[in-house]
Amino acid sequence: MPRKKKNIQRSATLHLTLPATSANLGPAFDAAALAMEIYLTIDARAASDFSIKAAGRDSATCQALQDNLILTTHCEVLEQEGLGFVPLALRIQNEIPIGKGCGSSAAARLAGVALANHFGHLRWSDAQIIGEASRRERHPDNASACWMGGLTIARMSSESEAQVACIRPKGKWPLLLAIPEESLATEKARGVLPAAYSRADAVLNIQNSLFLLAAFMEGRPELLAPSLGDRIHQPYRAPLCPLLPALQELNGKEGVLGAALSGAGPSVIVFLDPNSSAQKTKRTIAAHLEEKKLAAELLLTSIARRGARG
Amino acid sequence: MPRKKKNIQRSATLHLTLPATSANLGPAFDAAALAMEIYLTIDARAASDFSIKAAGRDSATCQALQDNLILTTHCEVLEQEGLGFVPLALRIQNEIPIGKGCGSSAAARLAGVALANHFGHLRWSDAQIIGEASRRERHPDNASACWMGGLTIARMSSESEAQVACIRPKGKWPLLLAIPEESLATEKARGVLPAAYSRADAVLNIQNSLFLLAAFMEGRPELLAPSLGDRIHQPYRAPLCPLLPALQELNGKEGVLGAALSGAGPSVIVFLDPNSSAQKTKRTIAAHLEEKKLAAELLLTSIARRGARG
Repeated sequence: MPRKKKNIQRSATLHLTLPATSANLGPAFDAAALAMEIYLTIDARAASDFSIKAAGRDSATCQALQDNLILTTHCEVLEQEGLGFVPLALRIQNEIPIGKGCGSSAAARLAGVALANHFGHLRWSDAQIIGEASRRERHPDNASACWMGGLTIARMSSESEAQVACIRPKGKWPLLLAIPEESLATEKARGVLPAAYSRADAVLNIQNSLFLLAAFMEGRPELLAPSLGDRIHQPYRAPLCPLLPALQELNGKEGVLGAALSGAGPSVIVFLDPNSSAQKTKRTIAAHLEEKKLAAELLLTSIARRGARG
Repeated sequence: MPRKKKNIQRSATLHLTLPATSANLGPAFDAAALAMEIYLTIDARAASDFSIKAAGRDSATCQALQDNLILTTHCEVLEQEGLGFVPLALRIQNEIPIGKGCGSSAAARLAGVALANHFGHLRWSDAQIIGEASRRERHPDNASACWMGGLTIARMSSESEAQVACIRPKGKWPLLLAIPEESLATEKARGVLPAAYSRADAVLNIQNSLFLLAAFMEGRPELLAPSLGDRIHQPYRAPLCPLLPALQELNGKEGVLGAALSGAGPSVIVFLDPNSSAQKTKRTIAAHLEEKKLAAELLLTSIARRGARG
């Protein structure tokens, strides 16, 4: 029999790199998401007491010990598994905008679950880790893309496990993330959605979702551009997210393939033509938004091939 | 300058092989279809008068000159292009069940368009040929799969052109087609559908459609089985198509991955586990239907890699 390896060394520290994620992708509402090369990185070590040193974006929120989403999740998971707290010293470097539809809460919850899994020796599978974060998020889209990377299709297969198909998009997919100043609560963005849809609306989203997936899987940006249309959520959320209709005016023009709400908004993910200069397109977008008197931070990024698991 | 080639030789005869097709595939309602290795083959030559010699399934219908869907389409397309009739002598060998949801009308209409294209020297693109047949069919699903082969995602991009993404499914996809005696008019099957759907129903179909496509593209039968659920059309058509609920009882059992209505029914397409014996599964299905006192012809087939274009 193989000797059981002691885990003390492995357990002493954990380094995590969690990508920002964008869910929904236009028509693929509550179904698909992609990981972006914008990261939350965490160095954790077992300590005698909890402490956080945070740098980067929203560092005050990241550093706050009270109601810290990473630590709360970590402690709750250990507790529900019947284990005692493992106090941790965290060093955080954050690039993910918080509360803007870029998967910050999914990354934080996944980090908490991954810390509990590591320091509590839970040996959970990917499906369990994603499932636990998804249950807490109430949807598996962002957590799946954050953990697995690339583009993911996800749904809950039971109350605590997610079913995930992870796709590696073919070719280059340059992105621009447009982030407004104000954040938007997902609950508010959910509240504006209607309860029922026409058959034509449902069919349009099914068709576009399939074309969208085919575009990514086959590396065909020209197929993406006409496939971002959605009638399930974006038309209702546009009034809450004025960046979306403004950016959709550029669809198919000047290096822009199309735009979609990132998650429930208010940020917008813009798919860029890989054959155009991303910097030039960024300047065009900045000028367009200025003309519309809309303020937004513009971040050039691309699809992260690797997720936090990697 | 290159000399213009004379087309007389090329025009004298045309051989067409058009596969049967199965649209909708469960959740991908009005969006996806696949081609099957069940064929309508046509040998056509310009003649002094119209004539048809047909053999195979439903040969009397295929051979009737009056209201013949192939010839009517051929003549109408030539007429709308401002060209005179080109009388044809056809030899038809048919395997496709007529009026059973297996794409017989799409194959016949495509044949008519392809004959007009060939004998009228129209030089239409694939998109135009599919578009013309689809306009006449009032949907592009079957015509796209029939012309392109494999699995297709399709929608009308204008009144007369179809946008099609053609996927070559990875791996083996054995199929069984269960065909009842009675045919079912598509109009009747459309009539039973509701006008509106809940958000949960629309989302379920979006998720399942994406998982279904990923299963085919990545060659993952185990991902197909839980992805055939549909809330847009099958629950409403099941009373008209009693084979469907009967065959769905076998989902995930005895070599059956799952079942879906073929088009608007009444036939049912059954996806078989590639690791089981298809013949054995066929016997199991036959026994199950006999027990239920349901009569059906059972045809083993698989996805046709090549369409009529090939």
